[in-house]
Amino acid sequence: MNHSQLFNNIVKKRSFLCVGLDSEIDKIPSFLRKSNDPVFEFNKRIVEATHEYTVAYKPNVAFYESLGYNGWKTLDSTVNFIRENYPDIFIIADAKRGDIGNTSKMYARAFLENMPFDAVTVAPYMGEDSVTPFLSYEDKWVVLLALTSNKGADDFQYHDEDGIKLFERVLTVSQKWGTVNNLMYVVGATRAEMLKDIRKIVPDHFLLVPGVGAQGGSLKEVAKYGMTNKCGLLVNSSRGIIFADNTEAFAKVAGEKAREIQKEMECYLTERNLI
Amino acid sequence: MNHSQLFNNIVKKRSFLCVGLDSEIDKIPSFLRKSNDPVFEFNKRIVEATHEYTVAYKPNVAFYESLGYNGWKTLDSTVNFIRENYPDIFIIADAKRGDIGNTSKMYARAFLENMPFDAVTVAPYMGEDSVTPFLSYEDKWVVLLALTSNKGADDFQYHDEDGIKLFERVLTVSQKWGTVNNLMYVVGATRAEMLKDIRKIVPDHFLLVPGVGAQGGSLKEVAKYGMTNKCGLLVNSSRGIIFADNTEAFAKVAGEKAREIQKEMECYLTERNLI
Repeated sequence: MNHSQLFNNIVKKRSFLCVGLDSEIDKIPSFLRKSNDPVFEFNKRIVEATHEYTVAYKPNVAFYESLGYNGWKTLDSTVNFIRENYPDIFIIADAKRGDIGNTSKMYARAFLENMPFDAVTVAPYMGEDSVTPFLSYEDKWVVLLALTSNKGADDFQYHDEDGIKLFERVLTVSQKWGTVNNLMYVVGATRAEMLKDIRKIVPDHFLLVPGVGAQGGSLKEVAKYGMTNKCGLLVNSSRGIIFADNTEAFAKVAGEKAREIQKEMECYLTERNLI
Repeated sequence: MNHSQLFNNIVKKRSFLCVGLDSEIDKIPSFLRKSNDPVFEFNKRIVEATHEYTVAYKPNVAFYESLGYNGWKTLDSTVNFIRENYPDIFIIADAKRGDIGNTSKMYARAFLENMPFDAVTVAPYMGEDSVTPFLSYEDKWVVLLALTSNKGADDFQYHDEDGIKLFERVLTVSQKWGTVNNLMYVVGATRAEMLKDIRKIVPDHFLLVPGVGAQGGSLKEVAKYGMTNKCGLLVNSSRGIIFADNTEAFAKVAGEKAREIQKEMECYLTERNLI
């Protein structure tokens, strides 16, 4: 999917919501455990209930990997289910991979060739040759970690050289590796006010913003400081939607939660005359 | 495995060699492709031929992940084969994982509970809470990326704040998260002379040193600058051993290459009166 297709989907859906499929097996409703593949069954119902309100899904690979090779089957089934039924939806493998060049190429193959993901999250620590193998696929994307939403972000990401913090350096340096058509950045919503300065460095790139909801970020502030004239935002919510309820009504409730966020997003898109 | 067991194995084997099982399917001898699980068959024969000369194996997960869920079965079979047949050997999942706390916990489960690995490589970019979930297992280890052996290491790892480079900050800050009994560091051999300064920051921690062989690092210099009175080194070689030959004699040749390195290591251990 390219940049304009993604923006067109945002306009059409009146939403820039990404639903995080962090489908931890211990947290899914117990009645689903009778199924052959409980996590796939859970994801399928969540997707069916939320797809109208969302432009992207983001399974975090850790939750699948923790189930061994059956978890990889579940991940594969999930991404294929979304791709076949909702072809316009952008699908991100939240994998936070990154290794030396010939090895990153293998990770790229895993997510961008073997499975029909549109994008992979990548960690920047190992630099250019660990990232570029993911950028060689047409209409596929890297979502590079810049500023994450966890407490540990303070340990290194704010490390400052001549007034330039590490995450700012990641934003600046990595722009040479890709374009606004194949490179996005993770910027945590728990520090929404920082989006103002971040937009000076990356005025046009899409930002994937986690941390809204369970992690405490404000959607209003993210839209205020981060939105561009092509939206430029995918805001992720995981637990706040998928685990909002754990009765038989879980999917319906997830749909309602997604719709609430979509409605709020619609306001911000309208205020900016994007829809 | 704890620190003294690892050192005892080094003394017993007269070796601090780690063999990297970067078993890329396109590079293994073609006659093995008839097997049900060619990569497992390759690994099994490499391990049988090299185990006398090595104290550790390090499958890089990317090469297995690129084969989909069958690759995860192969990885699982490989690590179980080593654990059952050579219980004293230290096994590292070279996975370079790292995510927010509740998610890193899932990755830790994947490698340290579901599979009998002794250690996982972890990327430091997301800070403390992305690393500590891996440190909560008795006698299991984190191998944290500090200075990698690829060109991209220059992009961020040398980023300097008040004379302290990012990789030095990673070494300093992360020591509070673990101990010499559960935390090692990746330090690339392509810059062996830097080990002298690195040893001032981490005098006693084990260092996992990639980049010897195919990537050009010198074992002699690594031993000179990096060895402690408990050895404190695991030096990895992958392609230089496992792909030294691709005829029917591949395993025999791999064994000879491993033995050559072991012999050289034996000299350095003798010089330091460790054996």
